[in-house]
Parts: sequence; structure tokens; C-alpha cells
Amino acid sequence: MATVRLLSDAELSAEARAVFDEIRAARGTDHVNDFWRALAHDPVTLRRTWDSIRAVMAPGALDPLVKEMLYVAVSIANGCDYCIHTHAASARAKGMSEPQFMELVAVVGMASETNRMATAFGIEVDERYRAQG
Amino acid sequence: MATVRLLSDAELSAEARAVFDEIRAARGTDHVNDFWRALAHDPVTLRRTWDSIRAVMAPGALDPLVKEMLYVAVSIANGCDYCIHTHAASARAKGMSEPQFMELVAVVGMASETNRMATAFGIEVDERYRAQG
Amino acid sequence: MATVRLLSDAELSAEARAVFDEIRAARGTDHVNDFWRALAHDPVTLRRTWDSIRAVMAPGALDPLVKEMLYVAVSIANGCDYCIHTHAASARAKGMSEPQFMELVAVVGMASETNRMATAFGIEVDERYRAQG
Amino acid sequence: MATVRLLSDAELSAEARAVFDEIRAARGTDHVNDFWRALAHDPVTLRRTWDSIRAVMAPGALDPLVKEMLYVAVSIANGCDYCIHTHAASARAKGMSEPQFMELVAVVGMASETNRMATAFGIEVDERYRAQG
Amino acid sequence: MATVRLLSDAELSAEARAVFDEIRAARGTDHVNDFWRALAHDPVTLRRTWDSIRAVMAPGALDPLVKEMLYVAVSIANGCDYCIHTHAASARAKGMSEPQFMELVAVVGMASETNRMATAFGIEVDERYRAQG
Amino acid sequence: MATVRLLSDAELSAEARAVFDEIRAARGTDHVNDFWRALAHDPVTLRRTWDSIRAVMAPGALDPLVKEMLYVAVSIANGCDYCIHTHAASARAKGMSEPQFMELVAVVGMASETNRMATAFGIEVDERYRAQG
Repeated sequence: MATVRLLSDAELSAEARAVFDEIRAARGTDHVNDFWRALAHDPVTLRRTWDSIRAVMAPGALDPLVKEMLYVAVSIANGCDYCIHTHAASARAKGMSEPQFMELVAVVGMASETNRMATAFGIEVDERYRAQG
Repeated sequence: MATVRLLSDAELSAEARAVFDEIRAARGTDHVNDFWRALAHDPVTLRRTWDSIRAVMAPGALDPLVKEMLYVAVSIANGCDYCIHTHAASARAKGMSEPQFMELVAVVGMASETNRMATAFGIEVDERYRAQG
Repeated sequence: MATVRLLSDAELSAEARAVFDEIRAARGTDHVNDFWRALAHDPVTLRRTWDSIRAVMAPGALDPLVKEMLYVAVSIANGCDYCIHTHAASARAKGMSEPQFMELVAVVGMASETNRMATAFGIEVDERYRAQG
Repeated sequence: MATVRLLSDAELSAEARAVFDEIRAARGTDHVNDFWRALAHDPVTLRRTWDSIRAVMAPGALDPLVKEMLYVAVSIANGCDYCIHTHAASARAKGMSEPQFMELVAVVGMASETNRMATAFGIEVDERYRAQG
Repeated sequence: MATVRLLSDAELSAEARAVFDEIRAARGTDHVNDFWRALAHDPVTLRRTWDSIRAVMAPGALDPLVKEMLYVAVSIANGCDYCIHTHAASARAKGMSEPQFMELVAVVGMASETNRMATAFGIEVDERYRAQG
Repeated sequence: MATVRLLSDAELSAEARAVFDEIRAARGTDHVNDFWRALAHDPVTLRRTWDSIRAVMAPGALDPLVKEMLYVAVSIANGCDYCIHTHAASARAKGMSEPQFMELVAVVGMASETNRMATAFGIEVDERYRAQG
């Protein structure tokens, strides 16, 4: 049902295969998500995307589980069913409990409700909430 | 610039005034955001929205700062400028550092990029990421 | 295919069961939509959401059918397939005819077209359309 | 602040001027919204868009005020500030009261909240809500 | 799975049949997409939509393949799975190569990432990028 | 009005300054957009984003002007005012004529209209438009 064919391991270019090897090592499983099998048609973008994801999702000022939950929340707001499922799975693998997922959903819903209300009212940002030099 | 006039304290109904009193007590400041001054035209919805926000954002399985950052991330994805500014201010008041905000933005951007790519490919969710009974 | 398991009646907490009883009474049918069976994992949010929906959708300044059609229109713009189907069914149960549904779709399409055009032009709101004190 | 210059009456092509004459006659005012002054750079699209709006928004199975409120609701969900202001003004001109506008906003907010929740749960549409031949 | 029944050729009104004849002639195939079979319930909107699509997508200042690729890109950003598949097929029929599709996806992803980042930062448009009279 | 302060040249880290030098060289102007001045708070993300944009927007299977127009179209659909203005300026600098911009807007509008209609109908993708192995 995809717009591009999903590549099997046998069909990968050398560059794509190298990325798949890194994905397998990083995830500790032989399974590679279909997202990467679609992206493998374009090895340069596959490499750039995988490197970016690793950089963005690495531990930093925020811990990896918080980042994964932010990823899930944005995927819900953007309406990407594939991304919701795969990143919810990642968040669970990193320790997200079911009550935490239900709270995340409640926050996403609440924010979406007040986002639309504030947009409807067309109110300007108060001076006090603007950044300053 | 708003689609409804912002109500001053003197114009509030008794029901709206009661909610404003609670907002002031909860926030520890006399300032009440313009969002509430717009919503005050409809005291029933004002009450329901304030009660819901308090319930959703209270400490639970997720800590309040994580919830506030989820709120900011969703507001970015939904494109609500007012909400981004006010909830970024709340998150900072709860301890969000500038490097944390920058990482949050990087995650929202990355998620939005891969959300669109996955949508473009039209790939189905792998069986392994679906919930089970 | 869901990210959370749908709870059967036998698995409901007492609080969730009470909400399901109210849903069944209000809808006049034993069937409870799967949305509520997912939300039942979080009885507090289930209760809050059901109470809010009843309050928002009750007859008021707008009649219930108009509210239901607004709900459908927003669900289309937000891209929620589940919500489009269930609320279109509710609207039909409240009297929406097929020509009315087709007109609703035409309005949603037209609005989306001019929304994007106006956004593309980046034009400011004329002074005459702004609210005044 | 626009991406295209707004055309004055003196700059209109004959085709654009004819559409402006119709807008003025239909609206009963000499004022022509800036949206049309931007679109006037492309007289063919100006003509098509004006004709389409008139056709879609004319009385039919739904009354014009309901259509205008659907237009406002969709504009909120699509985040078009210009469209929210101008169509809220049109709806008010057609009789929308302030309590009706506040209820409209509450419905848009509620729908957006449950839209995101249902999307988060990834639930399939129940068979009973699907159309049949 | 649709919210409206798809009409067979035998069920078309005379007005709808005339549009279907034009679609078949323009596309050079007897197949008519299900989108038109749903829209056929409203022959006036069917006629207007078909006429508009032909006018918008005809060769002009932009060539038809570029227009078709813009259509695909917008459909991805709007999250319309049906539209992505059908317009990607049209673009391929007009000559879009697989490397071109992969680059299109990369641009849509990149734009979505920086769109959200710029929205998060809430920065105003520089004076130099605003249109002038 | 931004959520983060825009950094002046004097405040840049060495890593950020190196990226600014590349931006200036690539664009052939001393002006650096405010987007980069916000992103400069996070030099690692600044570097990654600039490198990604250059890679994605370089000539390839699609020519740079087509890519820039795709970028503008997606920015409209995502509702990023800042991005619409800056990328429309880039597209004009690469040769986009005003009639081409107006046609681009017409395509974005038309696509958004039919995107919502198809979503409203909830129709499944025809078998013939699905990818095959």
C-alpha cells in the first residue's frame, strides 16, 4: 500500500547497507523498520536522516525518554499514524508506562483544544511573554 | 486585534470572577492571561477549561515540567503562536533551561520531518508495533 | 491496530463502568464506541471527556445538529478519520440529510482553499474586522 | 507585510474590475477585502474563486449562516488568522450572536481535543459507522 | 469504508455522467477514480471541481509536471493518503522519475522541519522579505 | 516577539560563526536571516540544519527552482508565515516570476480543497495506485 516499494536486504546499495548495519547495532535487533526500507531508495537522504535522528535523540539536556515522548506527541499532532505506533513502541522500550502514555494523550488533547481556542480569539501575545535582549 | 473583546476585571460575571480568583491563587500573581479574558464571555466554558487544565497538568505519572514541554511541542505543531509563548514561559518558570528548549525545538523539527516522510511513503504500521489483547 | 488495547466491559474499573452506563443511557444503545474503550484505561480522563462532550454538545445558543456538523467539519480539517465517521453518523442520526453532508464537504473544501491562499499572500487583517472595546 | 502587493482599483485589469464590481454589489459596500486585492494579480483565478465562493455559500440544503459558521470553524482548524477575522465578521453580519460564536469556539476546541486523542489511540472505524451500498 | 457510497456508472445523473465522460476523455482511460464517484452525489460540486482542476492544472507559467509535484507535496503536508497516492501516480504518468519523487519527499521533510523550528522561535518576517508597493 | 533572543554576530560561538561565514558565502550577502540568529543558541543543530538544507536543496534530479517552489508550497500548507516570506524571496531570486507564484498559490489552494474533500469521503486508495514489488 506504500507509494514506493520497500527494499529487501538483498536490494540495498552498499551505502544503504552500511546504514542498516548501524540501525541494527543501535537497536540491538535484526529487524529494520519499513520506514528505512522505503528511504533506502535514496541512500544519501537515508544516511542524513539516520545521522540526524541519532544526534537529535541522544542524551543531552533532556533525557532520551522525554525526547521520545515529545516525538510521539508531535506525531499525534501531525497525524502520522506510522510514526505514532513506532515511536510509542520506542518510548515503551525506554520505560514509558501505560499511565504515562495516557497522560501524554491527555496533554496532547488539552493543548490542541486550547490551541484552537486561542487561535479563534486571535489574541496577541502579552508583552510579558516575549523574549528580551 | 482579537475576534472578541478582552474583558476587564470590572466586567466579569460572578462565575468568571471566581475562576479568575483561582487562577490568581494558583499562579501566585495578579496577572491573568488574555486567553482567560477572552474566554470570560462564556463563564461555563471558562470554568470547564480551567478545571480541565488543572486536572491534566497536575503531577501524576508524568512530572509537571515534562507535561509543560509536551504542551509547548504540541502548540508548535498546531501553529498557535500565543500558546507557544505562554507555555514556553510556564515551562521556564517550572525549570526548563535554554538548552532544554533548544533540544525540544530540535525534536519537534525532526519529528515533523520524518512524520511527513512516512506519510509520503504511505507505509503501513508493522504488525509488531500494534497493540495486542 | 490501536496503540492501546480496547477494554471489554468485564475489564472496566467501577469509575469507567459508571461512565459507560451514562453513555449507554444517553445514546439509547448498548453499543459503546471503541474511542471510549481505549480511553477507559484512564478513568479520570474518561469521566472528564464525557462530561465535557455532553456540556459542549448540549442545546444552547446553537442547536445540536449545527454543533454536530461543526464537529464533523473540524474533524475533516484535523484529518481524524475515526472522528469523521462517528460524528457523521451522529449528525445523520440527528437529521443531517445527504445533500446537507455534501454541502458541508463543499464548504470545508472551499474554506481550506481560501485559507491556504490567504496564508500564502500573508495579508494582515483589515482594521475593520478587528474587535473593539 | 504581504508576499504580493495589494492592487488599488486603478491598477485592476478589466477582468478583475468586473469581479470587483460584482463583489461590491453582492456585499452592498464599496469596501473590497485585501484578499481580493492580492488575488487580482491573477484575474482568471480571481474569477474562478469568486464564482466558486458564491456557488458554495448560496442558500441550499444548509442555510447561509450555518455555512458561514462552518467556514469559520474550518479556518480556525487550519490556522488562518485573516480568514477567521473576515468570516467571523460575515457570520456576525448574517446574525451570529456572541453566545453562538463562543459555542462555536467551544465545539472547535472539543473536537480538536478528541480528534487528537482518537488519532493517538489509532483505533479503526467501527464497521457500523462505515457507509454501505 | 467511505462516509458516502461510491456511485456506479448506472447511478449517475445526466449532469454527473457528462463530467465522467470528460474525465474519461481527458485521462484516456475508462477508469474513473473513486473520488469522483463519491463527489457524484453532488453534480454541481462535481462539475465545479472538475472544471477548476482542469483550469488550475493546465499548462501555464508552470509546466504540468511541476504543478503535479506541488500537488503531491501539499497533499503530504495536509496528510491526505488518498491524494498522495493518486497524484503521485499522475506525476509519474507525466514523467516524474523515482529519484525525483525521493527528492520531493526530502524537500517536503526538510521544509516541515524548518517550518516548525521557525514557528517555535516566533520570529517576525524581516523587513527585506516583505512586499512593497 | 521571538521566544528566544536573536544573537548578534558578536555573541556567536566559534562553531556558529563558522556556519554564518558559510551562509554569507553561499548567499553572496552579508545579511543572515533571523532564523539562523535564533538557531545559533544551539551550534550543533545550527550546523546540522545548514548542512541538511544545502544537501537537500542542491541541484539533483529536480532543479533548484522547483525545489524552492516545493518548499514554499509546503510552508503555506504548514502555515509558517516566516518561511513563506523567506522562501518566496529565495524562489524569486532564483527566477520565479509573479505569474508562476500566482499559479503556485492556485495549485496549493486547489490541492487543499480536494485533500479535505477526499478526507471527508474517507475513500480507500484504489488498488491501481498502490506500489508493487
